[in-house]
Amino acid sequence: MTANFNSLQLIHLGIETQKEYVVFMRFDCAICKSEGFEALNRIKVTVHNKSIIATLYIITDGILETGKAGLSESAWNYLGAKEGDEVSFAHVQPVESMRNIRSKMYGEQLDDTALQNIITDIVNGQYSNIEIAAFITACAGDNLNIQEIIGLTKAMVNTGKKLLWNQKIVVDKHCVGGLPGNRTTPIVVAIVAAHGLTIPKTSSRAITSPAGTADALDTMTVVNLDINQIKKVVEKENGCFVWGGSIKLSPADDILIRIERALDVDSEGQMIASVLSKKIAAGSTHVVIDIPIGKTAKVRTEEDAEKLKYYFNVVAKAIGLQIKVLFTDGSQPIGKGIGPSLEAIDVLSVLRNETEAPQDLKNKSLLIAASIINLADKEQKNNGLTIAEEILASGKAYHKFLAICQAQGGFKEPTTAPYSQDIKAVTSGTVTQIDNRRLAKIAKLAGAPQDLTAGIILKTPLQTNVKAGDTLFTIFSESKGELNYALKYLESQIGIILIQ
Amino acid sequence: MTANFNSLQLIHLGIETQKEYVVFMRFDCAICKSEGFEALNRIKVTVHNKSIIATLYIITDGILETGKAGLSESAWNYLGAKEGDEVSFAHVQPVESMRNIRSKMYGEQLDDTALQNIITDIVNGQYSNIEIAAFITACAGDNLNIQEIIGLTKAMVNTGKKLLWNQKIVVDKHCVGGLPGNRTTPIVVAIVAAHGLTIPKTSSRAITSPAGTADALDTMTVVNLDINQIKKVVEKENGCFVWGGSIKLSPADDILIRIERALDVDSEGQMIASVLSKKIAAGSTHVVIDIPIGKTAKVRTEEDAEKLKYYFNVVAKAIGLQIKVLFTDGSQPIGKGIGPSLEAIDVLSVLRNETEAPQDLKNKSLLIAASIINLADKEQKNNGLTIAEEILASGKAYHKFLAICQAQGGFKEPTTAPYSQDIKAVTSGTVTQIDNRRLAKIAKLAGAPQDLTAGIILKTPLQTNVKAGDTLFTIFSESKGELNYALKYLESQIGIILIQ
Repeated sequence: MTANFNSLQLIHLGIETQKEYVVFMRFDCAICKSEGFEALNRIKVTVHNKSIIATLYIITDGILETGKAGLSESAWNYLGAKEGDEVSFAHVQPVESMRNIRSKMYGEQLDDTALQNIITDIVNGQYSNIEIAAFITACAGDNLNIQEIIGLTKAMVNTGKKLLWNQKIVVDKHCVGGLPGNRTTPIVVAIVAAHGLTIPKTSSRAITSPAGTADALDTMTVVNLDINQIKKVVEKENGCFVWGGSIKLSPADDILIRIERALDVDSEGQMIASVLSKKIAAGSTHVVIDIPIGKTAKVRTEEDAEKLKYYFNVVAKAIGLQIKVLFTDGSQPIGKGIGPSLEAIDVLSVLRNETEAPQDLKNKSLLIAASIINLADKEQKNNGLTIAEEILASGKAYHKFLAICQAQGGFKEPTTAPYSQDIKAVTSGTVTQIDNRRLAKIAKLAGAPQDLTAGIILKTPLQTNVKAGDTLFTIFSESKGELNYALKYLESQIGIILIQ
Repeated sequence: MTANFNSLQLIHLGIETQKEYVVFMRFDCAICKSEGFEALNRIKVTVHNKSIIATLYIITDGILETGKAGLSESAWNYLGAKEGDEVSFAHVQPVESMRNIRSKMYGEQLDDTALQNIITDIVNGQYSNIEIAAFITACAGDNLNIQEIIGLTKAMVNTGKKLLWNQKIVVDKHCVGGLPGNRTTPIVVAIVAAHGLTIPKTSSRAITSPAGTADALDTMTVVNLDINQIKKVVEKENGCFVWGGSIKLSPADDILIRIERALDVDSEGQMIASVLSKKIAAGSTHVVIDIPIGKTAKVRTEEDAEKLKYYFNVVAKAIGLQIKVLFTDGSQPIGKGIGPSLEAIDVLSVLRNETEAPQDLKNKSLLIAASIINLADKEQKNNGLTIAEEILASGKAYHKFLAICQAQGGFKEPTTAPYSQDIKAVTSGTVTQIDNRRLAKIAKLAGAPQDLTAGIILKTPLQTNVKAGDTLFTIFSESKGELNYALKYLESQIGIILIQ
């Protein structure tokens, strides 16, 4: 399809729309008129023989002169555009793979080819945000069956990079999440790498939570490494803990997550595909998956956890991955801190064997490290726990943690926020229930994860005896506005921490 | 929630994003930093004590000076903003009713309250485009049950205006669509109004088709009337044929349709709710609904039609509407023209009793007019067809048509397009099958409905005997580019008109 009509000259507008490609044209532009382009139309935009599909915004005022067109920053950068470049336009056929999504809305199953086409088109920028939202919604909740999840997983693997390692066994871990403060990864990586297993760990940033592992690590070291840098770190130290997004192991997932976050939607099938495709892409062979179960965790009942475990096992087998699924306690946050810096402080406390270190975080990290050793190192004959305890207690884990940070670009102590407010108990009694979701929400309103030092320190875990006036938790914030905003929300809430 | 921080000054950027509200702020803006706003965040924007929820775009280049902010045209107009106005910003809580949509994704039923909250929030501009896309997808296909459709219908009625008439009986018609050229409305309105029944007909523009009734009428009269103008026309002439969108009978529907069009998605439940809520809002008491059935029509089998009929009947009863559902032939286009002007020419030909007038369009219009008379005027004892035939043949219908056009603002003859191309048969034989969908697609690629004179004239309906070299249909276009684009698509297609 060639553009047999006039072109326009580009000027730089510098409008940031995140990843959606947008093109700006004048309302009286001859091309718009002759081609029948209208606002929000999807059109093909070509600069230097490179093309994208972009959404059209019409400009009715003076920010564009006649004969000029503008692009969103993402489009400008992708096309390598320069001021004054010639840009041409053409109609596009509707994206063919959207047909499959429409079929899915009508209850039809998506086969491997359909899923591959959808994911390829998404990665190639062929989908608008609303089309991605339709895909996410059509696949949300329980709407993908096991065959579809396998297909989606394979499609995601095929569209990303794949890391290759010299070692025959490469281990990894993943936590299904929903549990604030559950920052076991840096501790597990340190123990397992110190034991001598290869664990090139990539982590995500928060989607709907107050902190992802990458956010917490951000406060202590450099997590934004490219593939070559990661290889060097792992070669030297057996392990790493880096942000997965920068190396595009699963570019489809990065795009989907942006819209999932805006919709605040999780999809079981997409979650499994996302997790396992990243493990394959990272070159892993043996993976431990932690599913915390609790009334206000992501997985609420043992029954739901069993179903998820079944899915994980079937999909893992289909793609040739050895996994071990653990069920853990998800009834309350792990550790004391919720938010990037506050969670990092807990991690350091465990690694340094401090007496006030949160025991739940320590024990859970040991459990996961032990499970990895037992799954991947058969010579140890299920002695993983003893081995892990020795590595942590001896300081070898802390030493390994610092060495990995050093290899990634250096270690720094996490800092704390300038504003804080204690939240006190109004009655006396015993803490019998903690609402993870609402605690996470307060931490987010206070600024986490964008503000690294924002969040919450929980002072009273389950079964703590409190007197009226005791501090239940403290809110931390980087701006007064955000602290007030979190407090405002808190005013309208009761029973976040239940005292009986 | 008050904004206890600084404000910015508005400047007019004139960026048209259709109905989505967008706010533009500088990357280095103090408010963005202190509040932690990021690109694509939804934030509350207040000007003159009036507020909207808008999507944030960040500007990294020089089009905004420090201290300034911009708005999309829709936001600018809604807020009644002026150059230099003070604008303030605040965080927003996530829209509460999105929770219901998330539940729906997980298979839960939406009750009346949930649907009302969703529709109210959508009408009030609380939803971003991707959130609307999620709602449409969650309700698409077969995903709404009968209770949900009733709830959605009521919610749509409640958020719109309602027309009141002095007459006890007010009639209407609706066609489920998917059939190119099916432009019975102007003829039916003329006959029924000439008979003396009140028929204040509002029609839509095309969603995914090459022409809606309002598009075709646009080529002959003024369809963009406000409620007072409509009342005057109907008082004088018993009937009207206007565009429904301008009077906001169902503002929710106008917003949903924009995204449905972009996604090219139809939802059975939303279609029923949209149709019936508009009938109630228009003050109708008796409505005939036409469901064309055909392999390439919207409704493909009698079984699907029966289900739709059942839904229509149950929902109509729940909201107190008397309806009659007709099944009609949907195996080929009605009339010769496909596209706004070309369909209008067919309509005039029938009304003028010309010998070359398309008989299928004439007969179908008579059938619908007769059904309306039989349903609403019990005194006629099912003599509707005889009455309708007399009114059309005598010229009373044409006279009434012109009178209504006159009352709406005048009548004009539809014009034809400057570019055309005959498509010829390559073999001889009998036409045995016509693909409505692909014919419609060609008409759209040629520019319909945006270009009013673009489209197709079909020369060879089913059962026509053709010789190789005979013209099957002619494509019309207002620009050479669009004509070529339609021809390009045609090249890759076979069997649109099957000759055996």
